[in-house]
Amino acid sequence: MGSVGLPKKYKAIVYDKPGTISTKIEELDMPEPGPGEVLVNLTHSGVCHSDMGIMTNSWAWLPYPTQAGQVGGHEGVGKIVKLGPGTENAAVKEGQRVGIKWMAGICQSCTACLAGHDAMCFSGKISGYYTPGTFQQYVLSPANYVTPIPDGLDSAAAAPLLCAGVTVYSALRKCNAESGNYVVILGAGGGLGHLAVQFSSKAIGHRVIGIDHSSKKDIIMESGAEHFIPVDGTTDFVQAVKDLTDGLGTHAVLVMTANNAAYGMSVDLLRFGGRVVCVGIPEGEAVPIKSALPGIMVAKSLQIVGSAVGDRREALETLDFAARGIVKTHYRVEKMDKLAEVFTEMNAGTLKGRVVLDLS
Amino acid sequence: MGSVGLPKKYKAIVYDKPGTISTKIEELDMPEPGPGEVLVNLTHSGVCHSDMGIMTNSWAWLPYPTQAGQVGGHEGVGKIVKLGPGTENAAVKEGQRVGIKWMAGICQSCTACLAGHDAMCFSGKISGYYTPGTFQQYVLSPANYVTPIPDGLDSAAAAPLLCAGVTVYSALRKCNAESGNYVVILGAGGGLGHLAVQFSSKAIGHRVIGIDHSSKKDIIMESGAEHFIPVDGTTDFVQAVKDLTDGLGTHAVLVMTANNAAYGMSVDLLRFGGRVVCVGIPEGEAVPIKSALPGIMVAKSLQIVGSAVGDRREALETLDFAARGIVKTHYRVEKMDKLAEVFTEMNAGTLKGRVVLDLS
Amino acid sequence: MGSVGLPKKYKAIVYDKPGTISTKIEELDMPEPGPGEVLVNLTHSGVCHSDMGIMTNSWAWLPYPTQAGQVGGHEGVGKIVKLGPGTENAAVKEGQRVGIKWMAGICQSCTACLAGHDAMCFSGKISGYYTPGTFQQYVLSPANYVTPIPDGLDSAAAAPLLCAGVTVYSALRKCNAESGNYVVILGAGGGLGHLAVQFSSKAIGHRVIGIDHSSKKDIIMESGAEHFIPVDGTTDFVQAVKDLTDGLGTHAVLVMTANNAAYGMSVDLLRFGGRVVCVGIPEGEAVPIKSALPGIMVAKSLQIVGSAVGDRREALETLDFAARGIVKTHYRVEKMDKLAEVFTEMNAGTLKGRVVLDLS
Amino acid sequence: MGSVGLPKKYKAIVYDKPGTISTKIEELDMPEPGPGEVLVNLTHSGVCHSDMGIMTNSWAWLPYPTQAGQVGGHEGVGKIVKLGPGTENAAVKEGQRVGIKWMAGICQSCTACLAGHDAMCFSGKISGYYTPGTFQQYVLSPANYVTPIPDGLDSAAAAPLLCAGVTVYSALRKCNAESGNYVVILGAGGGLGHLAVQFSSKAIGHRVIGIDHSSKKDIIMESGAEHFIPVDGTTDFVQAVKDLTDGLGTHAVLVMTANNAAYGMSVDLLRFGGRVVCVGIPEGEAVPIKSALPGIMVAKSLQIVGSAVGDRREALETLDFAARGIVKTHYRVEKMDKLAEVFTEMNAGTLKGRVVLDLS
Repeated sequence: MGSVGLPKKYKAIVYDKPGTISTKIEELDMPEPGPGEVLVNLTHSGVCHSDMGIMTNSWAWLPYPTQAGQVGGHEGVGKIVKLGPGTENAAVKEGQRVGIKWMAGICQSCTACLAGHDAMCFSGKISGYYTPGTFQQYVLSPANYVTPIPDGLDSAAAAPLLCAGVTVYSALRKCNAESGNYVVILGAGGGLGHLAVQFSSKAIGHRVIGIDHSSKKDIIMESGAEHFIPVDGTTDFVQAVKDLTDGLGTHAVLVMTANNAAYGMSVDLLRFGGRVVCVGIPEGEAVPIKSALPGIMVAKSLQIVGSAVGDRREALETLDFAARGIVKTHYRVEKMDKLAEVFTEMNAGTLKGRVVLDLS
Repeated sequence: MGSVGLPKKYKAIVYDKPGTISTKIEELDMPEPGPGEVLVNLTHSGVCHSDMGIMTNSWAWLPYPTQAGQVGGHEGVGKIVKLGPGTENAAVKEGQRVGIKWMAGICQSCTACLAGHDAMCFSGKISGYYTPGTFQQYVLSPANYVTPIPDGLDSAAAAPLLCAGVTVYSALRKCNAESGNYVVILGAGGGLGHLAVQFSSKAIGHRVIGIDHSSKKDIIMESGAEHFIPVDGTTDFVQAVKDLTDGLGTHAVLVMTANNAAYGMSVDLLRFGGRVVCVGIPEGEAVPIKSALPGIMVAKSLQIVGSAVGDRREALETLDFAARGIVKTHYRVEKMDKLAEVFTEMNAGTLKGRVVLDLS
Repeated sequence: MGSVGLPKKYKAIVYDKPGTISTKIEELDMPEPGPGEVLVNLTHSGVCHSDMGIMTNSWAWLPYPTQAGQVGGHEGVGKIVKLGPGTENAAVKEGQRVGIKWMAGICQSCTACLAGHDAMCFSGKISGYYTPGTFQQYVLSPANYVTPIPDGLDSAAAAPLLCAGVTVYSALRKCNAESGNYVVILGAGGGLGHLAVQFSSKAIGHRVIGIDHSSKKDIIMESGAEHFIPVDGTTDFVQAVKDLTDGLGTHAVLVMTANNAAYGMSVDLLRFGGRVVCVGIPEGEAVPIKSALPGIMVAKSLQIVGSAVGDRREALETLDFAARGIVKTHYRVEKMDKLAEVFTEMNAGTLKGRVVLDLS
Repeated sequence: MGSVGLPKKYKAIVYDKPGTISTKIEELDMPEPGPGEVLVNLTHSGVCHSDMGIMTNSWAWLPYPTQAGQVGGHEGVGKIVKLGPGTENAAVKEGQRVGIKWMAGICQSCTACLAGHDAMCFSGKISGYYTPGTFQQYVLSPANYVTPIPDGLDSAAAAPLLCAGVTVYSALRKCNAESGNYVVILGAGGGLGHLAVQFSSKAIGHRVIGIDHSSKKDIIMESGAEHFIPVDGTTDFVQAVKDLTDGLGTHAVLVMTANNAAYGMSVDLLRFGGRVVCVGIPEGEAVPIKSALPGIMVAKSLQIVGSAVGDRREALETLDFAARGIVKTHYRVEKMDKLAEVFTEMNAGTLKGRVVLDLS
């Protein structure tokens, strides 16, 4: 196999002081793909807000603290350079460009996997958390769980789609709204939100109403929204949405922001039979959805559903829409040694758009 | 048409002092069916908890107070004795036995109707609330909205199925659980609950876990539940349900009780991808579902849906299962002059099973 | 009500010699709307190939021969000018612009209606066949079965959508292909086909491959198809489709032509799990779908489904897409006295696009 | 790992003269599980009609002739005795009882696998055809593709369910009929059919009408059918089915027989919106389904779908119903050296019920 020419050492970014924003570039030994694994030479990795949560140990729901030396990252793109034993029947081959997602690997055989709930796999592994992630030049991955990258899609552009893109696409597929129906997107101008507006309006054909701060109006309208409602200056969101939806309310709401107030109003924006899809996860103490009132949910046959990370099929479909030019990611490229600075910007709330690390 | 032999006057029970439990039997003039209507000679009417809410003006969500002289009731069964003009193409004919449901009539043409949401019809009428109900010997109804009663099903047995039966059947059809899946029913021993246990276990083939007070264990197990968990004496319901469901939790929860505490635990009983169906409507101030937490709903892809009254198709299917002997209603028959006593029992919480009025 | 000013007589086109192409304009008495009916002052009616089938008695499956004096037509648009008794709760009002479809009226209460199969209503009436149709200035219709026409959509443009538009839209909703999936449309350049290409590509976001005679290439590509395959000059359609669909075949096939050869190849164009939707009805002796072979259908889990006329909800959605400018009908307007000439053109196969009669 | 005590050699039945009915017991070397594989010590294997097709090279659709030395069989049950490298995260462990199905292994990563079409996996392997099957005491299998056998289900009883059981269960899940709906089963008394009757009536709650030769009436009625129609002596099957289904026809038809005449009538037995599920694959030249006529499929919105082998989730559900005693397999147990005799009986058409080989 193609191990000829592989270097002995390569560069990786590790969290050297978990609990704080601090990263360090280290030289690691080249790993050998085990049974069922492939070795991928990564060229790009997106940087996601979840990575910061893992690095700084600020996510309450993660069971264990992150350990020093962890390689983070879960939006990686690169080429397969070596196949491990037992990968003969996998759908990928050496030289193929593939992506690594949040779920680094699943067993494909437990009850959760068979039911299509990748994120709940009984022995699932998370990329960049107790499994070496994509902030490095080489990574191991199960041969049957990597995501092929379609030709014609730039690797840097593909990276953020592997997490943010798949997440919003999967949520849209669960929103029950058909093309031509109204979809309200809360947090429409954010990292997830502006992708959701694009997929919803341009890929699926929904009539999108974006809600966010007025400073986000331009990106939301450019992304394909039909209407915009500013959170600053609007007092009655229910009426504002009704005014734009034949007086009936919207068919679906996507909560793309991690904001309890957004959840609080979400159900009230629906028409009879409408559905709220939960995506953003509020930090801090968990707060019930204020509008999840049994009486009104029964009277109007309303629905609330949670949407976890998408599966591989959805990942392929997400990338396909991007390869066809229908959906575009907004990102800037940074070198490996800028990761800590990126996290600092992210933490300060000054980061605009998505950052993709150039790992070469 | 068959108006020959119809009396000029007939007996009806009216709410003479709305806001209190008080009824009075009056002689009313025989009405004439208008365009599209049929006149039904009722022989039986079920007595539902909702009737008491209307009579006593205790339901906060009803827009107007009930007026003196209102004829209540919404679970009526009888025979069509006269057809109004324009009913030639309706699917029923004179002499046919039919039922009257909570929705007394819908327009069948508004957006809500076309979307299958009978209860949200823009000009829908509620039987027994601003539309004369079924606590009387004759009632008018739209020819195309009555529910044919199958041969072989006793009229008294059919009556409670037109509301309680259809409600639980419709909720079960929305619970996403397939035959062989686990369904937890909260309030399994109540009026709705014991019917839900029967439909779930005997008609659809779910594996039912009933939860209610230990005094209800017998009726729940006889109704077909596989397991019973008493609310009195159980401290950890999540664990109790996991112990009975392969450690994973249940596929679906039906909340058949109007109890905020039941809603509070409901979502936590689900396995990944599971669904809570809301049916019972708690009284008093509306309280959010405590377990409707975005974080956990996202992580486990959980769902909460409200289920309003069923439609005519579901009503027919409900009655069909009863006519085939698969589901049985428990009721006692009372004369018309006992209605106030029945409501008094109901109010005191001492009423066991369903009461059906004999209107003949 | 608004009967003031209605003339006593009005113009209608009748089939004076059924079995031949012959029409005659007559003066008819103004009808009075019966119970549940509205009187509509029509301004436009589309002319459909089915009308000719009825006029000439050439449709084998119609149970009875058409009778002299029949007013044909089933794509009418006009304003409600009078409401019959018992229409108070209908969702339309006097002065409203509405459309009349193939199904002139259904009972909304039989088993077929409750299951959503309008075309199979046990007492359904067909506009222009034993029920006066839309080739006249005034027509009666059930108040709860007319289709509201959205503002901003021209009446002439709306007319053909009430039959051809709804038919293709309904078929697309049954094709199981999601946005981004491949859809092959057989007969893509025809009256139904070019609308199907538009709805499929522009409204729903499918990737459309149109198949038809090479003379139709332009209209098919302008309608939004991604690829075109000419029937003249192509020998291996299966391979041609595979070449355009990642080597796997298409997700769905819509047969929009009344051609047994098209049906014959349809199933073979599918990938695993794909679906053929039957719309066109071949004339003459009924021929089985040649590619409906149990062995291949089992091995690849293929599906074949028939799609009858759409329902009112689909009609509203169809018109909504047109009102928003996403889908456009191609038609020319003719006067009432040109109907026989139009049918003659249609019969000769020289008719291009749809004709709409101006009834004013 | 537990290789201690494994013998060096074990017994296998091979097809020594493919093309004829001939088998031979051989001693084979104990294999070593490769990456991702487990070694299973089989105790039982069902004998299926498909095995004979493979052995005798009589299945036209198989691409290559079977080679001498092939170990057949695809309904195996046994215990995992050794885990290969890279199986740490699989959902099974040493000592666990598992089953082997028709699909011996799939890649779980190609487009077909991601779409849930196991049988169409681009590199799928068929047990007993170019992959050693279950007519032997030890077999290798992918760790993530074996099917856990539930406690309380006898291994011999489980074996036939892994093919026949899963096939009918999967077909029923695709028939669109809800509990309480009518399902006609063609070939209801056969090996697949009598299981289908049980799953349909007892597990899912359909109202089953079995059609087969009158000699099969008893087993069909005992299996839970509500009605029986004999093929011998019935001339008008459409009318016979209508008479039992409120005059409307059945909601679904399952074709469990490999008979072109059965397919020929299948579509005609449906009511509006009904669905035929194809399961049996006729031998000889492929014949189109005679009743697959576009005109009638359109007019009544009928559907025909093919159902291939079920997936692992369906396999687990199938076994679960059996473990709960709801469905029972009829079989007799034979020793390994009787396999050729069993095939001879099968070929002669004298075999009653299913045969399970005791491999110990």
